[in-house]
Amino acid sequence: MSSFQYLKPTGSPFVDRHVTRFSDIVKPWNEQEIVGVGIVGAPLSKSSISHSGAHLAPSTIRKAFSAFTTYSIEDDCELSSFEIQDLGDIVMHVTDIVHSQDRIYKTLSEIYATNRKFLPIILGGDNSITYPSIKAFSKAKGRVGVIQFDAHHDVRNLEDGGTTNGTPFRSLLESNTILGENLVQIGIRDFSNSKFYRKYVDSHGVTVFTMKNVRERRITEMIDEALQMMKGQVDVIYVSLDMDVVDQAEAPGCPAIGPGGMSAATLIEAITYLGEQPKVQGLEIVEIDPTVDFRDMTSRLAAHVILHFLKGKARIK
Amino acid sequence: MSSFQYLKPTGSPFVDRHVTRFSDIVKPWNEQEIVGVGIVGAPLSKSSISHSGAHLAPSTIRKAFSAFTTYSIEDDCELSSFEIQDLGDIVMHVTDIVHSQDRIYKTLSEIYATNRKFLPIILGGDNSITYPSIKAFSKAKGRVGVIQFDAHHDVRNLEDGGTTNGTPFRSLLESNTILGENLVQIGIRDFSNSKFYRKYVDSHGVTVFTMKNVRERRITEMIDEALQMMKGQVDVIYVSLDMDVVDQAEAPGCPAIGPGGMSAATLIEAITYLGEQPKVQGLEIVEIDPTVDFRDMTSRLAAHVILHFLKGKARIK
Amino acid sequence: MSSFQYLKPTGSPFVDRHVTRFSDIVKPWNEQEIVGVGIVGAPLSKSSISHSGAHLAPSTIRKAFSAFTTYSIEDDCELSSFEIQDLGDIVMHVTDIVHSQDRIYKTLSEIYATNRKFLPIILGGDNSITYPSIKAFSKAKGRVGVIQFDAHHDVRNLEDGGTTNGTPFRSLLESNTILGENLVQIGIRDFSNSKFYRKYVDSHGVTVFTMKNVRERRITEMIDEALQMMKGQVDVIYVSLDMDVVDQAEAPGCPAIGPGGMSAATLIEAITYLGEQPKVQGLEIVEIDPTVDFRDMTSRLAAHVILHFLKGKARIK
Amino acid sequence: MSSFQYLKPTGSPFVDRHVTRFSDIVKPWNEQEIVGVGIVGAPLSKSSISHSGAHLAPSTIRKAFSAFTTYSIEDDCELSSFEIQDLGDIVMHVTDIVHSQDRIYKTLSEIYATNRKFLPIILGGDNSITYPSIKAFSKAKGRVGVIQFDAHHDVRNLEDGGTTNGTPFRSLLESNTILGENLVQIGIRDFSNSKFYRKYVDSHGVTVFTMKNVRERRITEMIDEALQMMKGQVDVIYVSLDMDVVDQAEAPGCPAIGPGGMSAATLIEAITYLGEQPKVQGLEIVEIDPTVDFRDMTSRLAAHVILHFLKGKARIK
Amino acid sequence: MSSFQYLKPTGSPFVDRHVTRFSDIVKPWNEQEIVGVGIVGAPLSKSSISHSGAHLAPSTIRKAFSAFTTYSIEDDCELSSFEIQDLGDIVMHVTDIVHSQDRIYKTLSEIYATNRKFLPIILGGDNSITYPSIKAFSKAKGRVGVIQFDAHHDVRNLEDGGTTNGTPFRSLLESNTILGENLVQIGIRDFSNSKFYRKYVDSHGVTVFTMKNVRERRITEMIDEALQMMKGQVDVIYVSLDMDVVDQAEAPGCPAIGPGGMSAATLIEAITYLGEQPKVQGLEIVEIDPTVDFRDMTSRLAAHVILHFLKGKARIK
Amino acid sequence: MSSFQYLKPTGSPFVDRHVTRFSDIVKPWNEQEIVGVGIVGAPLSKSSISHSGAHLAPSTIRKAFSAFTTYSIEDDCELSSFEIQDLGDIVMHVTDIVHSQDRIYKTLSEIYATNRKFLPIILGGDNSITYPSIKAFSKAKGRVGVIQFDAHHDVRNLEDGGTTNGTPFRSLLESNTILGENLVQIGIRDFSNSKFYRKYVDSHGVTVFTMKNVRERRITEMIDEALQMMKGQVDVIYVSLDMDVVDQAEAPGCPAIGPGGMSAATLIEAITYLGEQPKVQGLEIVEIDPTVDFRDMTSRLAAHVILHFLKGKARIK
Repeated sequence: MSSFQYLKPTGSPFVDRHVTRFSDIVKPWNEQEIVGVGIVGAPLSKSSISHSGAHLAPSTIRKAFSAFTTYSIEDDCELSSFEIQDLGDIVMHVTDIVHSQDRIYKTLSEIYATNRKFLPIILGGDNSITYPSIKAFSKAKGRVGVIQFDAHHDVRNLEDGGTTNGTPFRSLLESNTILGENLVQIGIRDFSNSKFYRKYVDSHGVTVFTMKNVRERRITEMIDEALQMMKGQVDVIYVSLDMDVVDQAEAPGCPAIGPGGMSAATLIEAITYLGEQPKVQGLEIVEIDPTVDFRDMTSRLAAHVILHFLKGKARIK
Repeated sequence: MSSFQYLKPTGSPFVDRHVTRFSDIVKPWNEQEIVGVGIVGAPLSKSSISHSGAHLAPSTIRKAFSAFTTYSIEDDCELSSFEIQDLGDIVMHVTDIVHSQDRIYKTLSEIYATNRKFLPIILGGDNSITYPSIKAFSKAKGRVGVIQFDAHHDVRNLEDGGTTNGTPFRSLLESNTILGENLVQIGIRDFSNSKFYRKYVDSHGVTVFTMKNVRERRITEMIDEALQMMKGQVDVIYVSLDMDVVDQAEAPGCPAIGPGGMSAATLIEAITYLGEQPKVQGLEIVEIDPTVDFRDMTSRLAAHVILHFLKGKARIK
Repeated sequence: MSSFQYLKPTGSPFVDRHVTRFSDIVKPWNEQEIVGVGIVGAPLSKSSISHSGAHLAPSTIRKAFSAFTTYSIEDDCELSSFEIQDLGDIVMHVTDIVHSQDRIYKTLSEIYATNRKFLPIILGGDNSITYPSIKAFSKAKGRVGVIQFDAHHDVRNLEDGGTTNGTPFRSLLESNTILGENLVQIGIRDFSNSKFYRKYVDSHGVTVFTMKNVRERRITEMIDEALQMMKGQVDVIYVSLDMDVVDQAEAPGCPAIGPGGMSAATLIEAITYLGEQPKVQGLEIVEIDPTVDFRDMTSRLAAHVILHFLKGKARIK
Repeated sequence: MSSFQYLKPTGSPFVDRHVTRFSDIVKPWNEQEIVGVGIVGAPLSKSSISHSGAHLAPSTIRKAFSAFTTYSIEDDCELSSFEIQDLGDIVMHVTDIVHSQDRIYKTLSEIYATNRKFLPIILGGDNSITYPSIKAFSKAKGRVGVIQFDAHHDVRNLEDGGTTNGTPFRSLLESNTILGENLVQIGIRDFSNSKFYRKYVDSHGVTVFTMKNVRERRITEMIDEALQMMKGQVDVIYVSLDMDVVDQAEAPGCPAIGPGGMSAATLIEAITYLGEQPKVQGLEIVEIDPTVDFRDMTSRLAAHVILHFLKGKARIK
Repeated sequence: MSSFQYLKPTGSPFVDRHVTRFSDIVKPWNEQEIVGVGIVGAPLSKSSISHSGAHLAPSTIRKAFSAFTTYSIEDDCELSSFEIQDLGDIVMHVTDIVHSQDRIYKTLSEIYATNRKFLPIILGGDNSITYPSIKAFSKAKGRVGVIQFDAHHDVRNLEDGGTTNGTPFRSLLESNTILGENLVQIGIRDFSNSKFYRKYVDSHGVTVFTMKNVRERRITEMIDEALQMMKGQVDVIYVSLDMDVVDQAEAPGCPAIGPGGMSAATLIEAITYLGEQPKVQGLEIVEIDPTVDFRDMTSRLAAHVILHFLKGKARIK
Repeated sequence: MSSFQYLKPTGSPFVDRHVTRFSDIVKPWNEQEIVGVGIVGAPLSKSSISHSGAHLAPSTIRKAFSAFTTYSIEDDCELSSFEIQDLGDIVMHVTDIVHSQDRIYKTLSEIYATNRKFLPIILGGDNSITYPSIKAFSKAKGRVGVIQFDAHHDVRNLEDGGTTNGTPFRSLLESNTILGENLVQIGIRDFSNSKFYRKYVDSHGVTVFTMKNVRERRITEMIDEALQMMKGQVDVIYVSLDMDVVDQAEAPGCPAIGPGGMSAATLIEAITYLGEQPKVQGLEIVEIDPTVDFRDMTSRLAAHVILHFLKGKARIK
């Protein structure tokens, strides 16, 4: 046998013939129509109020894919029958942030238009990508309900800085892209929001579950309540996950870390449950800054979130 | 409008007109009498047995004030009606540690003498500041009860190193500044203390709740027990928080980290409850070393502690 | 008195006459027969699939011994009556990994042969040391049962890289050193193993408790079940602890970190309980890489594990 | 004497009554007309091609002011007679980079218009601030010559990303703000530029001294050559310092570090010499990212640059 | 135009249409015969005496290729006419180090056999790769002379650890792969070698230039002396660069850092000069550990070394 | 042969039978009279004006001893005939800094009294140890001349903080322990001192060589000048090395780093030359803080300084 057998691209991982890594089933997009789950990166973080390297998260999350396998031993569920297309990242403009956000909207719109059965997993970037992402989603899918995991309302005014990572849900509400009654915010945290904006979301009919609710109630029960509420009101549901909903001890790589947050276990339970809901047809993960993380812990958690979302989907296949 | 509008001091944070940050209500002392809460830094850490940068914590905790708002969404409670005076730090001597401790005592004594309705929040520094701080407090306020959150008894002998961060409660007991029966230690941890000192505190009638107690009982129940015990015995209660009571995973920036500690959530619950007690008239936070912390996590937790303490106070206003 | 009283070896710790540190009772081996607990380092990590500095853990764990005392305040239990011999580390060959593993086997075999009442605490190194360690243990002690705490089965095939940190339990099973029915794996984690290897351990009669089991059941109940099962089948029980069984937030220094793991508190509860079992006669701790840890947190946890194991042993003395 | 004497703002430095720190003579702007040197921060780095925290440099450079005194012992020259006004930072827009650049232009223009004898020291920020800064300078001062220290030409095309940190000198040349023959680039480095842009600057008559020139010739000799060339052609000279002109070993905190750069000693010699030239009436320092620096080394070098520039100015007073 | 234009693989760099990066001309091997320069990684570092992550350097050096362009402005020399094939890395065995070294030998032998006009640039890995690399080179090319830049002789005995990163030149000499008189060691450092091994190399007729020589003489003069000596004695010359020849301040990422080393500028001058020699037909760079480097400085220097080597080659094209 | 052959203390280094490490000839003090060189640690840094971990340097410098051998290849000089006694560290008091300084004085005095032919190498600690150290030295040895390498005069007033790391030479001069004319300060740096203190040292007849002198003259020439001056005036010479004399790029681990400093090569040249002077009978190295260093670079440099000092001594043996 040839000695050339040992030549491989630099950084190739160890291969065990009896193990399928998650990265093994994520393939570069073959430019055919996508039926099922696909991944798109939206590496925008210049729109952040504070200094953020969240544009690097699509790379680190993908890198974490190779740290996990496709097999859920807890539920004896094998994901390797999924074929996941990786569409790559939407390239951002260097200096025109508004144009970058528009690129997200236009690219996703066009993808949805040509891939009607595509279920998107969007990797931010900061939370400002949520507005163009859901706008495109909504144009393609009809009435959209949103389950938002977040420490913050993210409905800041637009006068004090434009369309930042603090404003996406305001833009969505003001533009009627989604209705307040179809927005459920989970994990809203003490001393991380203002009374003014609490009143704002209340006035729009948004449902808010604070961290106190999360501590005192079962997470699936609150989600059931949300699903019940949206029943008949929406065509599809989109899950928006700002990773800073999780406590600083378990998601140390978010720009706005703090104590008093959700546990990773609760988040995983919630996401798995949402994955099982047929109406849930989109997932985004934002606000991970790998440059301040510890050993990509937060990106590893993001990969776990995706895997459990897929486990949920696998169960309803 | 003039372009000079854009000139601001370096490092000025982003301003959202509808958000009040906690830092916005903490004002440099106006040298008037203080009625209510004020903040004083006691940046002493040369008194520590191990190498410690705890003298830098008053700066990092204050910096964390700008990461949080004044609004508790969990209890719909707005703190912005508080006005909090920041008296700055007590300057320490470079080489005379005993004199530095004396400066803390004298400065606080004088402040208390001239500000009878001042409720102090003292930012350490290491735990050695506790002795001069409570001595001054006691001189001004009468019989003092102390609720101490700590992994350690801190009653070391004084022969082996003087008045260090391991000795404050011994000094307080030996000087009769406080009585053993008015001292409650919560969170005392396995393999972090000696049998000798356990006996010492027992012999002084100190109440000890170990981490086993903390794991098995409700924190507010133990506090109720403590309050009941002190009822009629003390005029005021002072809360002494050595941040190393919290587990290393949630307070990674303490000099003496280890596993087996209290959760941040339990601490926050305890502090909020104590804040609600009218007799609780002082709070100190010690043993945070920002030079070994991760992203100022432990200082952020300290800021949260202060906010929840104030929330407690707000409820009884 | 001579001024030379102040001369001490560099790095000598502060001494409080009333405190016994754990390091105070761990003595360099006096080359006499050992009756009771002794410590041996097996600093091998070149056998790891991924880059690992786990060979440095014997040093950092020993260093952590001086951060803790011998007194369990939770159970009023003093360990200072133990005398623990530190036999040092087994020196590894620079380039011959298989020979290094053989050195572990031969050295431990000879130790066990000449010290019949020696209870070993083995400090890895990576998980590949488990095979030679248990092989030697089994030769000396008879039928061995193993309680393994691990996120992974560690039964990889041997063709794809030889005897790595992924293969020890395969080697043990295939060589009949232990029987599958006498192996209990606790903490096996989602998306961290393959279906193929799950079937492999099932076919060998191995008992598996996944993290789902750990979340839903009491840990001591599962251990009781395991002990019951092994009753009469084994002469001694060996506890193998791969520290990556613990969640990344609490054991950040393992090579293969991830979310969804066991809490440190659960692990400590399990280890204390196992320490109380007379048949449990060996403990190993592997897979801590101090070069990627945060402030030796994971080595501190390892020291705590050892202390609680000894507390268990102290109770049955 | 009152114990209040010990209360000072948090973080106050140690004071030696016989030492003047540089920070002691830099005063917040009193809003009077400025005669002489003043400092303005331009904290823009969202315009950078690669991820950059250069907007934080105005803070870290100012912080480094307190690490140095006002006394040059090498030349027995005391700077404490200078009074330096610190105008603060120009606040940047969160999402509109072009508008941010315009704020720099407008603010500086207005400052120059109302402070005719003001000698600016501009602290970036990235190199994109150079265009608005020199445009404003030129409007106020007449024909401007520029001595640019830089590893790169910074004349990239504007189509591939807008007005980034790679384009300022193109904008200056294309807009005729400065003439090519009045631009001297020093320190241009091997394998850090393209032949295309080398031709571009040549075609505009720009003078280029590569690092080879710097290694082989005396730096003051090259500067003399540049000054001679500009004599009679310009009214004032502006020094633009991209800190990445310095080698990575001595300026490790620049976004685009690499080997083969200028020594800090050569840079200091050059800057001192330029400070001595009466026509040199402006200085900017850009491209320091404190988030990737080692112990603010590069900001400390920036502070030294400013001090030596002032030493030069002091000599011609 | 389609919005899909914005979709690119994650991590794609900014493109300026007028700039050729070095990475742009390094292409994955097309499996055709290679005429000219090619790159091969030999990611072996388990053979190191101290803990080393040098196996990661092939990745970081390649990543540094995108930080530099193909244009030498110092000599107006454009490298973009080169086409460089990247053959990838030779995959190492997980646990059999000797077999890994054999893979290097066999793979390179086969490459040389089928690509007679291939000029290799080998990226280590640690210095142990030098023996199999030069053995293969010598088999293919005839009598080989070696110019070794190194702080150490690397002729340790083989009994104390096998074929480590301390032994390659002993193996080469003992096996007569190269003759002592055709080996020139440059940069050998004080207090980094033993007298015993100095005598060993002397007895084999090896030429040694210590750092004292390097400080006192011109580097090109010493190289001329070496070339003169080898004239007629060798068919080809191979340059072996252990990056630890460079001082710790400029190559902080080598396992064995220390003061008293060569400057990066001297190394670059030497390498450029060697690149100009037609007989120089191979280059290897070893002993860079990216896990302990600062901002990949040492890998950046390695990339610069390669670029200057190619500049030398370009001049003799 | 017994398998126990492989048991060694944890952390034992690799042994090559033909290499003597410097650490191999440094032996724990045998409590016999010391003839020749011995090492004493003085781990005091609480006396520092800024936060300093310099008390940890005696450990890291000793650790660096094992990174170097005893053979100077540059001068073919083998140090292994030296026997160096390591007396350990002088234990510091936890809270009484003045007493700690007194312990240094008393311990060294007593050592010198009982070991008349002992040549001390003192490892700080901060620069405050210099006063007690030289006071003891002077009591034992007669008239002492001091060659001080330092960026700073270190003659601060004692009112503003007591006997800190900024005051040692003031104390020495005011107490007439040494005469100003027998003190030579080399490497005094721009913008790091005040005019007031420059005048102070001038008025005491101290000789000052600034960094400008160091850049422009040969270091050995200045030392010759110093030696000439002291000839007949002093009985012995003590070399005091504040490592911050070296530039921040080469000694990044000093508390007070900055640009414009001495190169490590110049320092090594100076120290070697001083080692050759029979009258030079003491060396101290202070102001290395390992907690802020990069890879113990500065401690490695300190080890090199000691080795070159001994090389000098070896030449005059």
